[in-house]
Amino acid sequence: MKNYADRLLSAIDRKGSPCVVGLDPRIELMPDFIVNSREDWPPADAIRHVIGNFNRVVIEAVNDLVPAVKLQIAFYEQYGLPGLQAFVDTIQFAKDCGLIVIVDAKRNDISSTAGAYANAFLGRTNIFGQSQPIFDVDCITVSPFLGRDSLMPFIEACSAYGKGVFVLVKTSNPGSSDLQDQKLAKSGDPISKDLARMVANCGTAVIGEFGYSSIGAVVGATFPHEAKELRVLMPQAIILVPGYGAQGGTAEGAAACFNTDRRGAVVNASRSIIYSHERQDVSPSDFSSVIRRSTQNMKKEVIDAIPSMMTVAQ
Amino acid sequence: MKNYADRLLSAIDRKGSPCVVGLDPRIELMPDFIVNSREDWPPADAIRHVIGNFNRVVIEAVNDLVPAVKLQIAFYEQYGLPGLQAFVDTIQFAKDCGLIVIVDAKRNDISSTAGAYANAFLGRTNIFGQSQPIFDVDCITVSPFLGRDSLMPFIEACSAYGKGVFVLVKTSNPGSSDLQDQKLAKSGDPISKDLARMVANCGTAVIGEFGYSSIGAVVGATFPHEAKELRVLMPQAIILVPGYGAQGGTAEGAAACFNTDRRGAVVNASRSIIYSHERQDVSPSDFSSVIRRSTQNMKKEVIDAIPSMMTVAQ
Repeated sequence: MKNYADRLLSAIDRKGSPCVVGLDPRIELMPDFIVNSREDWPPADAIRHVIGNFNRVVIEAVNDLVPAVKLQIAFYEQYGLPGLQAFVDTIQFAKDCGLIVIVDAKRNDISSTAGAYANAFLGRTNIFGQSQPIFDVDCITVSPFLGRDSLMPFIEACSAYGKGVFVLVKTSNPGSSDLQDQKLAKSGDPISKDLARMVANCGTAVIGEFGYSSIGAVVGATFPHEAKELRVLMPQAIILVPGYGAQGGTAEGAAACFNTDRRGAVVNASRSIIYSHERQDVSPSDFSSVIRRSTQNMKKEVIDAIPSMMTVAQ
Repeated sequence: MKNYADRLLSAIDRKGSPCVVGLDPRIELMPDFIVNSREDWPPADAIRHVIGNFNRVVIEAVNDLVPAVKLQIAFYEQYGLPGLQAFVDTIQFAKDCGLIVIVDAKRNDISSTAGAYANAFLGRTNIFGQSQPIFDVDCITVSPFLGRDSLMPFIEACSAYGKGVFVLVKTSNPGSSDLQDQKLAKSGDPISKDLARMVANCGTAVIGEFGYSSIGAVVGATFPHEAKELRVLMPQAIILVPGYGAQGGTAEGAAACFNTDRRGAVVNASRSIIYSHERQDVSPSDFSSVIRRSTQNMKKEVIDAIPSMMTVAQ
């Protein structure tokens, strides 16, 4: 069972890019040729088909450029069971294309309930006496709000099945300051730093050959100053960097999440890639070209930013 | 559109009980007569049928005793799409029985993504130009980790559709101390108190005729001392109290979450009710009797504990 961190870092080397495309379906933003491909199908079939079709077109366009895709499950849940059917279809298609599949679900709960989520996404569920994989993705984002014990079932699944997690440490939204930036009485440090130390500590159980852990962290591209400090506190954690592009995060912000070995982070963009077409009536080939170009531009911006940040950091 | 807090409190009055039964499917714990009812159906159909059948039997046994049921979505997700199909079936059946449906999902995310979750569970999604309800439950548990802005889409959905949320404030697990009990430098108070103030503040937008808000809080029955303090800080919030029974929470712990008007809390038990049969080969009628008796016992214990706690509090 190959370590997740090794699988992800190998894929980044192979594709020459730490950039990840987010597959966040919003039917109202999709091109006409995708939406109209549903013809006169009944609604449930139409939803599944349109979302699945959109994701297939995106994956085919960017497959050689990215090591992984990130599926934000909220955008599938908002379409109910047909949306979740498309979620399952997309996971399979992405895996068939050799991509690593990250699910942004920010799940967590207590004890056996956290275990049920870990089973659902990373491990296996005992069903009528047989142990079976369910969504079986490579990695999931999890919330640390319920404490260290709530993370344990996920960490165990990472060890047992060669999977990974990204623990929320500092999210990309303005309101992340409400709780995550609060300073703790015991240390004077913001909560995000305390969480970064916990991630580093939990991660020592699942270190791969590259020296990185399968237990990573989420740190938004929108807070470069905090990112630099958090990067230092968890040197072996791979950081998933959201917030690039549409949310205002810059390449410099993202670059702050890399280590001096130019590794240790994956940068996600969703809207600014998959909805970068300017006209709803874009042709299929123009749509693929546009999202391909957006992905290449992002890759160049991020990679170009890494060394300059390293100079500052050294 | 009737306010959620009013709907819940009216149902509590009508049923004479603030106790809620948790529908957390674990096939390996279900009675033989339920598991074997799948005959030789294909796995997906069997999972949907067995879980749905189990929940129907439980709901029919306790329907006149409880105002609401709570579905822990992790236990459905662990069975994949057939599990989620049973989740949808169960929501419909519970609503048809006149029960309030609370989903324990501990969801949240940033901005438009939080909006997608709010659409999925409480509001509506625009699909091919039509606004449609999706899971359409009465209430969902949400995480405050991402800050106040992440709660806004849920609060807006509560206002618009007569729905409710319970925001995590102090969870019932031992590890809840890791983050939630940490004292803040600015006030010397634990984080849970800061969150309770935020819940109280957010809740003022959706107060019903009983004087309670549709924006409630989760406070575990396992921490009675903290519960008493948190109760005072958010007097208009309805508290969802998990952890009763199998997790070690007592009636006294639960009673600490009530106000002096004997309102303001709903107490959930899952395992200690729905898996309270001692033998897998229990008969259908004995199974219904056992879970009915467990529900009645819990109701008596909780109701008996409320006045004694109030005497202490006064």
